[in-house]
Amino acid sequence: MPDKEIIGGRVTWGDMVVPLSWAVRAGDTIYVSGMVAMKDNQPCFDGDIAVQTRLAMTFMRGILEEAECTFQDIVKVSVFLKNRSDFAGFNSTYAEYFPDEPPARFTICTGFMHEDCLIEFDATAYSPRTSVKT
Amino acid sequence: MPDKEIIGGRVTWGDMVVPLSWAVRAGDTIYVSGMVAMKDNQPCFDGDIAVQTRLAMTFMRGILEEAECTFQDIVKVSVFLKNRSDFAGFNSTYAEYFPDEPPARFTICTGFMHEDCLIEFDATAYSPRTSVKT
Amino acid sequence: MPDKEIIGGRVTWGDMVVPLSWAVRAGDTIYVSGMVAMKDNQPCFDGDIAVQTRLAMTFMRGILEEAECTFQDIVKVSVFLKNRSDFAGFNSTYAEYFPDEPPARFTICTGFMHEDCLIEFDATAYSPRTSVKT
Repeated sequence: MPDKEIIGGRVTWGDMVVPLSWAVRAGDTIYVSGMVAMKDNQPCFDGDIAVQTRLAMTFMRGILEEAECTFQDIVKVSVFLKNRSDFAGFNSTYAEYFPDEPPARFTICTGFMHEDCLIEFDATAYSPRTSVKT
Repeated sequence: MPDKEIIGGRVTWGDMVVPLSWAVRAGDTIYVSGMVAMKDNQPCFDGDIAVQTRLAMTFMRGILEEAECTFQDIVKVSVFLKNRSDFAGFNSTYAEYFPDEPPARFTICTGFMHEDCLIEFDATAYSPRTSVKT
Repeated sequence: MPDKEIIGGRVTWGDMVVPLSWAVRAGDTIYVSGMVAMKDNQPCFDGDIAVQTRLAMTFMRGILEEAECTFQDIVKVSVFLKNRSDFAGFNSTYAEYFPDEPPARFTICTGFMHEDCLIEFDATAYSPRTSVKT
């Protein structure tokens, strides 16, 4: 099997083709791009922090499935919040996806490409090819 | 030995349980969460950039020890500073911990979960299980 | 061959020695430090987003060559933009360097160590030692 693999289809943001792959496998590691709230394959920033977090997580689940891995394989997440006041709300929604042995993580406040975006996070997963999942 | 290992105990921030692991080993790589100034296992943002950097580094040393590795195994650090004016002060303190062959690094200015936090950094370490350390 | 290797020479920023390595190889993975626009081995922030992106990419090409890899080996990029309005301009310049199978990526807005810096990005490359390149 190839050591490097591109995961997910063409990425567009409105009319713009964005030069990134949704995820890339490199050996045993899968690098997942920055996830934001998505609906019908397009960014969707209508909701609050819980809504946007769920939309981003749901979209990421699809990417992970294409990569043949799961939330449990994620070992590191980089979290970018627009508002510090969303920290608690983000954590409680995020924790639903990682009930046990959550990934390592950093969380900082930054700006985003769209002013209504409240949350973006990337992820690094570890899923050796040689492992047999049953 | 297992390919994936959770390192460090439960993470709390005041009353809040934060859904992250202090570090996660994935194969030969150890992902260390964002470190901030810590005292008695709690964030402590009283000090200036040198003080906060040392408190974060001291806490990280403990995490690295639990992961059976050292500062010398760190290959990449992501540095987040509140104030650009702390750049020189951060560098001189940071350099004490990496006298030779410092890790790759990026350094940007961002906001944090607490307004008095001046510095946060994560780390990636590389420590093959098969290596024999003497 | 050693599992860990430091790539690139001493890093200075004006008079200051900055405690980082331009890149570090750890097994099959190469971690490249945050790249900014560089000229004559020094930061150079005169240009617009396209100019600064090209100066940073050109400098990174040299680092990648020292690491015996290429843009095609890059699997993950972290992009930091000063201005959201530079997003489209950055993407079109960036895409020249990754015409096929672009890396995974996140893109956020942050501040930098120099107020005229418009763009910084790090990179993670995957280049197994055992692969034979022809």
